[in-house]
Amino acid sequence: MHILVVGAGGVGSAVAAIAARRPFFDRLTIADHEVARAERAVATLDDDRFQAAQVDASSADDVAALIARTGATHVLNAVDPRFVMPIFTACARADVTYLDMAMSLSRPHPERPHELTGVKLGDEQFAVADEWEAAGRLALVGMGIEPGLADVFARHAEDDLFSEISEAGVRDGANLTVAGYDFAPSFSIWTTIEECLNPPVIYEEGRGWFTTPPFSEPEVFDFPEGIGPVECVNVEHEEVLLIPRWTGARRVTFKYGLGKEFIEVLTVLHKLGLDSTEPVTVKGASVSPRDVVAACLPDPATLGDRMTGKTCAGLWVRGLGKDGRPRSTYLYHVVDNAWSMAEYGHQAVVWQTAINPVVALELLATRVWSGAGVLGPEAFPATPFLDLLTAYGSPWGVKELDPSA
Amino acid sequence: MHILVVGAGGVGSAVAAIAARRPFFDRLTIADHEVARAERAVATLDDDRFQAAQVDASSADDVAALIARTGATHVLNAVDPRFVMPIFTACARADVTYLDMAMSLSRPHPERPHELTGVKLGDEQFAVADEWEAAGRLALVGMGIEPGLADVFARHAEDDLFSEISEAGVRDGANLTVAGYDFAPSFSIWTTIEECLNPPVIYEEGRGWFTTPPFSEPEVFDFPEGIGPVECVNVEHEEVLLIPRWTGARRVTFKYGLGKEFIEVLTVLHKLGLDSTEPVTVKGASVSPRDVVAACLPDPATLGDRMTGKTCAGLWVRGLGKDGRPRSTYLYHVVDNAWSMAEYGHQAVVWQTAINPVVALELLATRVWSGAGVLGPEAFPATPFLDLLTAYGSPWGVKELDPSA
Repeated sequence: MHILVVGAGGVGSAVAAIAARRPFFDRLTIADHEVARAERAVATLDDDRFQAAQVDASSADDVAALIARTGATHVLNAVDPRFVMPIFTACARADVTYLDMAMSLSRPHPERPHELTGVKLGDEQFAVADEWEAAGRLALVGMGIEPGLADVFARHAEDDLFSEISEAGVRDGANLTVAGYDFAPSFSIWTTIEECLNPPVIYEEGRGWFTTPPFSEPEVFDFPEGIGPVECVNVEHEEVLLIPRWTGARRVTFKYGLGKEFIEVLTVLHKLGLDSTEPVTVKGASVSPRDVVAACLPDPATLGDRMTGKTCAGLWVRGLGKDGRPRSTYLYHVVDNAWSMAEYGHQAVVWQTAINPVVALELLATRVWSGAGVLGPEAFPATPFLDLLTAYGSPWGVKELDPSA
Repeated sequence: MHILVVGAGGVGSAVAAIAARRPFFDRLTIADHEVARAERAVATLDDDRFQAAQVDASSADDVAALIARTGATHVLNAVDPRFVMPIFTACARADVTYLDMAMSLSRPHPERPHELTGVKLGDEQFAVADEWEAAGRLALVGMGIEPGLADVFARHAEDDLFSEISEAGVRDGANLTVAGYDFAPSFSIWTTIEECLNPPVIYEEGRGWFTTPPFSEPEVFDFPEGIGPVECVNVEHEEVLLIPRWTGARRVTFKYGLGKEFIEVLTVLHKLGLDSTEPVTVKGASVSPRDVVAACLPDPATLGDRMTGKTCAGLWVRGLGKDGRPRSTYLYHVVDNAWSMAEYGHQAVVWQTAINPVVALELLATRVWSGAGVLGPEAFPATPFLDLLTAYGSPWGVKELDPSA
């Protein structure tokens, strides 16, 4: 197996650091627009299976040429979702396996954005699923932490824990703080604005997919391992598009524990038009307001040393257990920033995203997982994934909740 | 009397439109950095007492040269407070009367900004008050609506209504809405950020002037004439510096009815550093975040046609009446945007600011008001001002409140 990781940012660098401890692959090329970033990621590892390269992720031609030149067999997309389609297309052309951690972008319904879906997350990829399947080629999409591990939990719930799932709701929350800043997001503000200000999507059996206004259905969820209660709201996310394709869950939601403060910040940015990517002119200079917001905030990848706390991703499943009695279970994965910084030198949110595609690549290398088409993580058996995650030193947890609450 | 108005923005243009209906002056020159704006203000009036000119308000030399060239006897500063000192200095040099509607800027205390004053509003002007008085020359400072009419109300309260004032609190609120915008401030966002994010100043007998954190002492004030309750908070404003110099009020405050939404917006802008005037670099361009915020919002001077509602400025006075019994009185002035647009073609907030210096200039022209030095509106008799304001067609009001509440 020769892995090509496209993107040497926070997640791409952490993927390299995690993979370096595993023997399952022969070679890993990490490529970035800025080759020095890729070289830095390789230099820290002292492992001659790794090499750096330059790539323009916005060009399918450039990505396909790099695949051909390196002989890569598996491509992991670790850049932001604007670049899904060129990388995905390059993999089809080069006939290699494709993995990503976020899917092709959505576009709101032009007239009724807060009721109906327009172009959904992943639609562009699923549109060519038949071609991938016919070619016997695999695209494993949404294979980070969320989407990713949350989808594996859905498979595990259906196969091993529940006879009937009334709702599968992803719940994601953290108690991370960053010393020395009034406000310092732990993840890309550009991406956070994109996902939080798009209309959230919900799935219901019979009704299909539909949308709501941003920040709908606020709910306080009590996260485990000392994180405690955090206000969560509906956010557009891939799991809601993936889980209904391969499980019988009758309702699927995604709620993100943004907390009151972050919701207030995003609401104000939107109200003032500061979330916009359309340039405005200021004293002769043309700038995108969203880029100005990002420029005013610290780069989250550099904040690991100042961060304290834990981040949690998980799936809250409600329905009937295998015994036919009501059951409510939260399946989760927690990373403590102090641990990920000490062990890997990568902050918790980035590290938690990065470990999952490495586990998946190992399952593909060992042929425990195999398939063809455009498939989500819930299309594969869950137990081998969950066992291997634990074997990597990062166990997951189960919390039984009161099914009558 | 030859009036020179420096600044042909919203307020300067409204000053010209109001003055055009009055016979008390011989000539009015309106000057702007952008001469076309001044020419537009003159063109709408069809009155040969008016002329347009070009001026650089940041240069005392340029302003003084324009005074000499035009033979102006009275200069009204209608640009933003960054330009107070060059215009004020030019008037001293040219030996003419100076008026403004905002005073020289403050600087927070370097170590304890939320407890102690640093450089206060108007300090630079009061520092040379003796020179102005010795020269027999008048600077009438803070002569808009607030500061301005609110200070006239303080004089009226002390002379005619109260034997003892325990607190004179300016309260300013509105129910203006702007159709077609999620968020559209009715006044310059640059200036609003400046005054609202500076530490608010309070005066107390015995303690003198001191400061608090922004948005302190929130209070819901019930505004008259259908505006209703609005959340008000402490804001740095000139009245607090002026009223104690010429009245015996034992406590002086300024609370602005920003409302919860505006306070939230300003808090978020500050938290993210988007209020800053220090440039950031975005894709090679250097821009001030505060300028980007302003560029994302509509120009308030252009919103009159889309605005609905009323704006109110007033002074809430508490203490003992002339009869020695507890008294609580709100003295106020309300402008309905529908009226000011129909009557003058200027939106309510801008028009309400502009009428007061015109009334003051008429009182100076007729020698009802006279004086020398750097004086606030409360240094002059209030009744002639209030009567003339009513004669201009814009009456003020009095509302008695429960003194035990």
